[in-house]
Amino acid sequence: MTGTPTGGAERAAALAPADDALAARLAAAGLDPMPAPAAYLSEPRGRLTGVGGLLLRPRTTEEVAQIVRACAAARVGIVPQGGGTGLVGGQVLTEGPAPVIVSLERMTALRGLDPVGNVALVEAGMTLADLRAAAEGAGRLFPLSLASQGSARIGGSLSTNAGGVNVLRWGNARELCLGVEAVLPDGTILRGLKGLRKDNTGYDLRGLLIGAEGSLGILTAAAMRLVAPPAAQGVAFVAVPSPEAALGLLALAEDRLSGCVSAFELIGRQGLDFLAEVGPEVTPPFRPAPDWMVLIEIGLPAGHDPEAELAALYAEAEARGLIDKAGAVVAQGARQRAAFWALRESIPEANRRIGSISSHDVSVPIAAIPRFIEVAGARLARLGDIRINCFGHLGDGNLHYNAFPARGRSRADYEDRRAAIKECVHDTVDEFGGSISAEHGIGRIKRADLQRYADPGKLAAMRAIKAALDPLGIMNPGAVI
Amino acid sequence: MTGTPTGGAERAAALAPADDALAARLAAAGLDPMPAPAAYLSEPRGRLTGVGGLLLRPRTTEEVAQIVRACAAARVGIVPQGGGTGLVGGQVLTEGPAPVIVSLERMTALRGLDPVGNVALVEAGMTLADLRAAAEGAGRLFPLSLASQGSARIGGSLSTNAGGVNVLRWGNARELCLGVEAVLPDGTILRGLKGLRKDNTGYDLRGLLIGAEGSLGILTAAAMRLVAPPAAQGVAFVAVPSPEAALGLLALAEDRLSGCVSAFELIGRQGLDFLAEVGPEVTPPFRPAPDWMVLIEIGLPAGHDPEAELAALYAEAEARGLIDKAGAVVAQGARQRAAFWALRESIPEANRRIGSISSHDVSVPIAAIPRFIEVAGARLARLGDIRINCFGHLGDGNLHYNAFPARGRSRADYEDRRAAIKECVHDTVDEFGGSISAEHGIGRIKRADLQRYADPGKLAAMRAIKAALDPLGIMNPGAVI
Repeated sequence: MTGTPTGGAERAAALAPADDALAARLAAAGLDPMPAPAAYLSEPRGRLTGVGGLLLRPRTTEEVAQIVRACAAARVGIVPQGGGTGLVGGQVLTEGPAPVIVSLERMTALRGLDPVGNVALVEAGMTLADLRAAAEGAGRLFPLSLASQGSARIGGSLSTNAGGVNVLRWGNARELCLGVEAVLPDGTILRGLKGLRKDNTGYDLRGLLIGAEGSLGILTAAAMRLVAPPAAQGVAFVAVPSPEAALGLLALAEDRLSGCVSAFELIGRQGLDFLAEVGPEVTPPFRPAPDWMVLIEIGLPAGHDPEAELAALYAEAEARGLIDKAGAVVAQGARQRAAFWALRESIPEANRRIGSISSHDVSVPIAAIPRFIEVAGARLARLGDIRINCFGHLGDGNLHYNAFPARGRSRADYEDRRAAIKECVHDTVDEFGGSISAEHGIGRIKRADLQRYADPGKLAAMRAIKAALDPLGIMNPGAVI
Repeated sequence: MTGTPTGGAERAAALAPADDALAARLAAAGLDPMPAPAAYLSEPRGRLTGVGGLLLRPRTTEEVAQIVRACAAARVGIVPQGGGTGLVGGQVLTEGPAPVIVSLERMTALRGLDPVGNVALVEAGMTLADLRAAAEGAGRLFPLSLASQGSARIGGSLSTNAGGVNVLRWGNARELCLGVEAVLPDGTILRGLKGLRKDNTGYDLRGLLIGAEGSLGILTAAAMRLVAPPAAQGVAFVAVPSPEAALGLLALAEDRLSGCVSAFELIGRQGLDFLAEVGPEVTPPFRPAPDWMVLIEIGLPAGHDPEAELAALYAEAEARGLIDKAGAVVAQGARQRAAFWALRESIPEANRRIGSISSHDVSVPIAAIPRFIEVAGARLARLGDIRINCFGHLGDGNLHYNAFPARGRSRADYEDRRAAIKECVHDTVDEFGGSISAEHGIGRIKRADLQRYADPGKLAAMRAIKAALDPLGIMNPGAVI
């Protein structure tokens, strides 16, 4: 598009700080503002620090709307916050006038749960784990599952269109959302919580607000899809000789199981080595560890035997040469299934303890994954002695491709090469037709990357939409665009 | 939102007609304009007639962009057309200056099909049936399935976010689309065909253009999801004593089959009576017909016996009192499965032959369907001697709730009550928290209904987006908003 408006960053520079006068007005309205404590000015890896601001913790959608209207009138920026687990800095404003931080932590109600219609109406501050528990209590599954689900909240998960381990079968956050309630940048409440599976009445504002990372409005509630839980589950670690063989196993599993593969995770040996080096302590499935393994979960209709299915899949995969000599381990019972998953979900914590030089949440076309791993690895090797922990959601083409210091060295030793390492990975992803943010979003950390890699037509349309819905540029200034 | 811009309808009034000068410019560019033949100025039910205009049938995305740029320069409206099967008049401009009609019928290429990544890159003019055949040839299933799939094209199906019979399991057109290529209203080409399952880089323009019915741009190609086809399929007609029992059967089937229910269609006796009265000729599954029946399709992993699964489901349903005395018929083999589906897909044709007074493509929360059918039926009875054919996608809460003349009377006899009948059905849907357009869209026929029933915040945001992306109002003027 031509003649496009300026981006949010330019408009954000013209904002006013959240000052005493605004605080007094909000206090007079019973909204209880306070100087933002440090916990609201940081992010999980401790790499960004917020500029301060006023913290508001509204209890109702109407209170959110009051806050937004007051900020619009005063031209003060707003930073919405959920669980604060995001990894791209969408929750922390690091420059410019001090904003109002709107935490949804007090809006945690389950407004309704309909097990027949398979829909839950939840406020934005509810954690994923709480919604999973509520669904389970009603004999249903809420399938969005992430390592951080105990802290991550619905609003933030939708704002970043979170993914996780079960996207392969049930979709990402956007696909699991049937409608949203939100406060738009002028304080209008968008009421879209019908929770219908089919509703073709106009533009998909739901989908637009999801993944907008708070830059087009504040999500206050959502209608989330539930599903019938698989009657019988099976989980196995399967050692494979190569990423290519892992792909072959995926295709075989999908063909045999017709959509009943719930998760298909690739794990490289480096992940297990990190766990052995720094913990958390886990029991590795294979000794010695193979170069590559897959964590597969299947969920079947009643009356079927998942262990037998996994054994049959293994036999066919072995006949096709897709299995490493280390073999496979099928979890026996619910406790071992949970233990297998706990190992997988410990890898991000081990990564944090090691301390990455640069982390990359990327996707490439699934068929290109083996070649991508080869090419990116060779290129990074030229940039120094780097350990790569490559793991992730193979079934979605989504890899967490993270670069770490060599043993005995620290993140600081690589400071001069960090930008080059990131650029090398992202350029390679781009060459392969991939995405530089598969499931974490853009936030503030990847904003320059978005400008570099995104389609110019997309960027221009995004700017036009941002200017149309948030002409003052107050919504999460500097995030995304 | 306050201070919103004017809608597309107001701007459309300021457009210029597609005149000889524009035709000459397009011809000089090798784009082969011609006066639009009658076939491009009508819709399937023959209720609308277009104002005429120039027909263009571009062969490439670049040609589409050239046409759009020429129209933008001349301020001439553009009506994009796919297969022309839409039922809400989105494909026919009925008033105002003559537009340029852009038919995508020549852009039918399959640009690529990746059976490992489960994605097909298709041009907008390909029919659904052709994509289904191409997928099948590669051992994959493209799951969007509609009665009109032989004529409906990908672009139109996405523009209306088409649904059909398998949404329950695999989602609607939007959920099946991983990315789009489109020409925006200023002629910019949006290139978004990476076909990744996970790509969180900025706003969801894909989702916004899908369902926008050509009012925000012209879809030229899409990356569509494929899935592994179920290894074994089963189809049955099950007679149920009531819609409530049908719901109970749905819940039971979903619980037992854990996501392996591919379709769950409700059919009322009126549908079979229409088929007997006017054809097409089909063999009814039950004689005499029960008041209500369900057509259920299940698709299972390899090694499972769908007929045995259906029998077990039937036994449990019968024990719970969910089965009518007419019982059930399980299709024996692929030919009978196809015959069962042919009966279901003949109902719209029978409806056309009878000639509805007013047709309603509605959804309500699934649990409310029995009560909705009861209440709407009682209210319509007060408006006269009306036959109701209520059928549709129970698993999605989507009913085609259509009103027909009494036997021996004609549509014309009800002319004076048509508006009241429509309003009665839509008001009832609205009371139940439902949607007045579940899967057909808004087009031109339902534009006033959208204004009446939609959330004001949503309408304001839609107007702002329309004005931002299409400031001249040239894209499908008068459609949707």
